[in-house]
Amino acid sequence: MTNQDLIKSLSIPTPSKIVLLVIDGLGGLPNPKTGKTELETAKKPNLDKLAAGGICGLSDPVGPGITPGSAPGHLALFGYDPVACNIGRGALEAVGIDFDLRPGDVAARGNFCTMDKAGNVTDRRAGRIPTEKCAELCKLLDGQTIDKVKIFVQPVQDYRFIAVFCGDGLSPALNDTDSQHEGVPPLPVNALSPEAKATAAIANQFIARARTVLAKQHPANMILLRGFSEKPNFPSMQDIYKLKSASIAAYPMYRGLARLVGMEIPKTGAKIKDEFKTLSERFADYDFIFMHIKPADSAGEDGDFDRKVAVIEELDSFLPQLTALKPDVLVVTGDHSTPAMLKGHSWHPVPVLLSARYCRPDKVTQFGESACITGGLGRLSATQIMPLAMANALKLNKFGA
Amino acid sequence: MTNQDLIKSLSIPTPSKIVLLVIDGLGGLPNPKTGKTELETAKKPNLDKLAAGGICGLSDPVGPGITPGSAPGHLALFGYDPVACNIGRGALEAVGIDFDLRPGDVAARGNFCTMDKAGNVTDRRAGRIPTEKCAELCKLLDGQTIDKVKIFVQPVQDYRFIAVFCGDGLSPALNDTDSQHEGVPPLPVNALSPEAKATAAIANQFIARARTVLAKQHPANMILLRGFSEKPNFPSMQDIYKLKSASIAAYPMYRGLARLVGMEIPKTGAKIKDEFKTLSERFADYDFIFMHIKPADSAGEDGDFDRKVAVIEELDSFLPQLTALKPDVLVVTGDHSTPAMLKGHSWHPVPVLLSARYCRPDKVTQFGESACITGGLGRLSATQIMPLAMANALKLNKFGA
Repeated sequence: MTNQDLIKSLSIPTPSKIVLLVIDGLGGLPNPKTGKTELETAKKPNLDKLAAGGICGLSDPVGPGITPGSAPGHLALFGYDPVACNIGRGALEAVGIDFDLRPGDVAARGNFCTMDKAGNVTDRRAGRIPTEKCAELCKLLDGQTIDKVKIFVQPVQDYRFIAVFCGDGLSPALNDTDSQHEGVPPLPVNALSPEAKATAAIANQFIARARTVLAKQHPANMILLRGFSEKPNFPSMQDIYKLKSASIAAYPMYRGLARLVGMEIPKTGAKIKDEFKTLSERFADYDFIFMHIKPADSAGEDGDFDRKVAVIEELDSFLPQLTALKPDVLVVTGDHSTPAMLKGHSWHPVPVLLSARYCRPDKVTQFGESACITGGLGRLSATQIMPLAMANALKLNKFGA
Repeated sequence: MTNQDLIKSLSIPTPSKIVLLVIDGLGGLPNPKTGKTELETAKKPNLDKLAAGGICGLSDPVGPGITPGSAPGHLALFGYDPVACNIGRGALEAVGIDFDLRPGDVAARGNFCTMDKAGNVTDRRAGRIPTEKCAELCKLLDGQTIDKVKIFVQPVQDYRFIAVFCGDGLSPALNDTDSQHEGVPPLPVNALSPEAKATAAIANQFIARARTVLAKQHPANMILLRGFSEKPNFPSMQDIYKLKSASIAAYPMYRGLARLVGMEIPKTGAKIKDEFKTLSERFADYDFIFMHIKPADSAGEDGDFDRKVAVIEELDSFLPQLTALKPDVLVVTGDHSTPAMLKGHSWHPVPVLLSARYCRPDKVTQFGESACITGGLGRLSATQIMPLAMANALKLNKFGA
């Protein structure tokens, strides 16, 4: 029996409410000048107050040393084994823009790119063309049929799009055409298993047509495809936890992830204050709300220590709106670390705090990486956070006689 | 997917360098007079400086309560599941003396022993005869053929040798002849599975011949065999981690273990200073260097608290030679604990420190068992140390989209 099966066998519906507040890329590394991380630098009286009254720890989204992508980072927080539940990029992007991906469809993540006369990629992101231009170009490619397979092309953001192949007998066992390098041609699509030969041929025809159609569209005169994949089939949060759940997330990918585990997706504005407004308005409707705060990760990715600090401070200023709703359990954590020093996701464990009436408070009084080392949750797997939240909400029956 | 498969799927070759410094039997127990362990008693300014700038923790080589032998202790440090990868003593000793053990060979670890006229073993180590005498006696037994099976006998050290049976259809499913007691006869070799019957008969014939050949060689007038085993087939460090790796180890068994996972074995002298000289000379040639310091374990096995302290102090004095090489990641730990108080290996978790540019330093300022409890690495499995070292060397790609 997996741990998820065990939790499923014990979970019961109750009126209690859980909020999981995910500050994307929360964990950091110390600023060499001060010895303090982004989270430790931020003035965040409300988070510190929660930490003081709650129980803290450090969590590993996938495992020590493993740097998680956004999908495994979130699936682990929802209590799903992030390795067993690994999702392809194409499927993830498709569900993230509300594309109705169905079993059997094969989705790829696309980049518009710039190609020179010799056929070498000179810019993998086509000068980062704006979303409007991307949408215009997608229309040129959308809706074709090749060998009875219909191909949908839809914009995501900036130079990013999805291509979804819909038809019978397709297989996602295909390599990326994006070599991740510039100065070389795109790779041809090859079948990675015999069943994928027909799909590979269709994908190559599609790419050849795109090259022709886009020939005069400099800088976006070519496409790169990667992450060919199908829609995964996960049990829902309702199945496992008996939770009526919702995701408040401004960014498409996180809504897509939430939808894959059966969460509802109330409409929300893009700013932190908009998300808190949505939370207040919709709090009564759900047992579980996952709230996603993106800009901390973006600042970390940009290497902007101070901006990440400012995002955490801004978030903190809205927290009283959340605590005023009196959720029975509030968990604040991240899906992974994004230290400004590394300008990217990292393997470092993520601070986590759980605030609930029946938690056993520890001596941590500040929410930060160093303080969390000594917290009562200790070092835990991110997949253990949902069971703890469920227990603290009194939503898990006793195990065994 | 095992964790090792996951790491293999993410590892990339880079120019960064990792040094794993293993102080054999590092962990200890407090001297009742001072309350301090061997490591805590030692004056070791260089290790403490590394601890202060790095991140510390306590590792379990196999699991809480499990006392590891040298092989599982090291395999766990190399990132191999020490239970799944358990190696027989015979195979281990054979590869440790550069014997070219091949698939299908069956190797046993041998002791020369003293037997009285009644056939009882009176000294399991034959008065600890010197290696030269051992080599002389091995020549008397080496190179025989019994039932088309050729038997190689080679000295290891002192009273210890290996016997390797080479032929078709052999099986290592045989019991030890060494009962581990004196005053009783050696046990006959019995087949532990039907396939091993022929091998058992050959081993018994070999032992009977040895008894005859050695009859007048008091005190070494008999042999004991144990740990019948075959060469294991492990994936290499190159396969898993894309590392060009080397082992600097004065003792044969540790070189043998390193060879089983594909490490190169540069020549080195036997003293700590010789090993550091070799490290400096060969550092440029490898991505990963495992350096093994034996005498701390030997002192612990002898119950000599002060000598173990002195070994740690000596090792510490050479550390600046290592840090001057500026490895990107330096891990200092042990393969298990060997408290002088217990005169043997023990189950106690082992202090570990990791020093690297992108580690997240904790508040530990001294390298010692008590201090490591509060370290940022927390309590971890020894198998997680390599993934952490790889991550800190920026040698692991992100997992998942």
